[in-house]
Amino acid sequence: MKDLDSELSIRELGEQGLLKRLQAFCPADLVGDDAAVLTTQPGKSLVVTTDVLVDGVHFSDRTTSPEDAGWRAAAANLSDLSAMGATPLGITVGLGVPGDLAIAWVERLYQGLTECLAQYHTVIVGGDVVRSPVTTVAITAFGQADPTRLIRRAAAQPGQAIVVTGIHGASRAGLELLLHPDQGHNLTSSDRAALIRAHQRPIPRLDVLPFLFPIPNPKYPTPFAGMDSSDGLADAILQICRASGVGAQIDRHQIPIPAGLSRWVGAEQAMKWALYGGEDFELVLCLPTDFAAQLVDQLDQSAMIGITTAQPDVWLVDSSHTYPDEQLSFEQGFQHFD
Amino acid sequence: MKDLDSELSIRELGEQGLLKRLQAFCPADLVGDDAAVLTTQPGKSLVVTTDVLVDGVHFSDRTTSPEDAGWRAAAANLSDLSAMGATPLGITVGLGVPGDLAIAWVERLYQGLTECLAQYHTVIVGGDVVRSPVTTVAITAFGQADPTRLIRRAAAQPGQAIVVTGIHGASRAGLELLLHPDQGHNLTSSDRAALIRAHQRPIPRLDVLPFLFPIPNPKYPTPFAGMDSSDGLADAILQICRASGVGAQIDRHQIPIPAGLSRWVGAEQAMKWALYGGEDFELVLCLPTDFAAQLVDQLDQSAMIGITTAQPDVWLVDSSHTYPDEQLSFEQGFQHFD
Repeated sequence: MKDLDSELSIRELGEQGLLKRLQAFCPADLVGDDAAVLTTQPGKSLVVTTDVLVDGVHFSDRTTSPEDAGWRAAAANLSDLSAMGATPLGITVGLGVPGDLAIAWVERLYQGLTECLAQYHTVIVGGDVVRSPVTTVAITAFGQADPTRLIRRAAAQPGQAIVVTGIHGASRAGLELLLHPDQGHNLTSSDRAALIRAHQRPIPRLDVLPFLFPIPNPKYPTPFAGMDSSDGLADAILQICRASGVGAQIDRHQIPIPAGLSRWVGAEQAMKWALYGGEDFELVLCLPTDFAAQLVDQLDQSAMIGITTAQPDVWLVDSSHTYPDEQLSFEQGFQHFD
Repeated sequence: MKDLDSELSIRELGEQGLLKRLQAFCPADLVGDDAAVLTTQPGKSLVVTTDVLVDGVHFSDRTTSPEDAGWRAAAANLSDLSAMGATPLGITVGLGVPGDLAIAWVERLYQGLTECLAQYHTVIVGGDVVRSPVTTVAITAFGQADPTRLIRRAAAQPGQAIVVTGIHGASRAGLELLLHPDQGHNLTSSDRAALIRAHQRPIPRLDVLPFLFPIPNPKYPTPFAGMDSSDGLADAILQICRASGVGAQIDRHQIPIPAGLSRWVGAEQAMKWALYGGEDFELVLCLPTDFAAQLVDQLDQSAMIGITTAQPDVWLVDSSHTYPDEQLSFEQGFQHFD
């Protein structure tokens, strides 16, 4: 006997609903983070993450060169590794391509992939190429981590400082400039270039890990709590809070946004892009307050943006009392799937 | 400046040509086998392999239920691990699906995947689901191996016995029966069922590894030479010979084929399916002759089918002199891509 809803379409159920159903097929201790952790031997964990990108859905020749599509795909996967506290070992690339696609397009994609990977001494270790009516890029990245030095979504505790490792909203603003080149005439040329670069060549924050896990080991309990902000800053905060059973109070004035953005689109739009734009690939961490202060001192453009609370709601508050307090929820968030 | 051929299409260049170009982006020591080997720590190697399957190209509702598509996808990847001498740790599944696909289809796919994995105490450890105009399944499997007990394509030496771990041609014959149910009326019902099952539920030969690498260690130099026969028996022999710089002499009478197949389609067609049909997922190994004899004694339906030679051509010979000697080449082989 089938469930009554077994004929539901994916569109009807939604991505989250489908993922939840599929998680029933996975061991419970392996799902719910940016990547899966596998212990291969005592002392080392293998960390694996996978992403599928489809032409016309996740990239488009209108805004993204093949090199940039490759860079972004590599960066997104390396960001997932960094969000687990893992250093990369390699990626595999599964490619579906129409027969009439130019070889040059594929080579340029791989060029972008390997350019990004090379920054982190990482390589493509294998792959598959098949015929497909639509160009599809499936990437699996794996890395290794010390199992005592992981970053997990569910590890936040009330009273911790919420740290972002950099500005938010830049990728979304860069996309706007690519779609509407006539926009943003009051941006300086270097601010404009920085926004476009943030969209085309995002930086996975693997550089943060040595500060989070210095040798000798810091005197704070691990795993630390955190994830990356690939699906938006608001989504990251909400995901961490839900997984950890805590809430948060975020001060909108503490969220670092790109230079010139408020002047261009206004403070309200800038905040929307910072919270919901997505693809900034920063780390969002919940840390003991003294350790957070120390980390923020060491990382340019990072900031303490709020605090975790025992009460489970997530509030965006305004320390200058211009805006009313606003409760954040998943409904406002950024959804890839429709 | 672009190369003159940079505007070549993938169709024009062919799959092998494209793969060769893409290998330029990978470290040379990581390509050329069924999967990539990464040394994470002394004493253990991480083995990774990836496959992309596209609706209408690699599976079809006409011949394959979603459960069988899932089983076959898992089996193909586990077979690649076994062909490296690795035992599986887990797989990731990247899924691209049209919005109007029934949830039940996807759940049945995962059912088949996990049914196959469960036979080998393996699990899905992560994945991604995205919107795509065409259903696409990208699987990455990883396993671990003792670096002194690997199976490599390039390790064959002249004068070794060529062993297959089971019958060939069964998957291709099963496909024929699914496409043309009126065929094969002279097959027994159990032979018919076995052929269909060989196509729908192929068995990755992870069970062979304990015989190849018994404890205590056999007195033969490793890595052993071999790969799986997923792209056809002829392809596997040719790949091993090319990678190892050896040739082979294969006795057509020694190739194990399914019961009843010659009576149904004739000896010549049966041999074509055995050599070029593909997807039998057996291991093809080149081993010292005494060790090969010992292995074949232990494995049902396995056989020594020939010998490697210093002279680099691959010949199919007929010990009963009914057929003339025939030189095998890649041109006759099984190609996924067109």
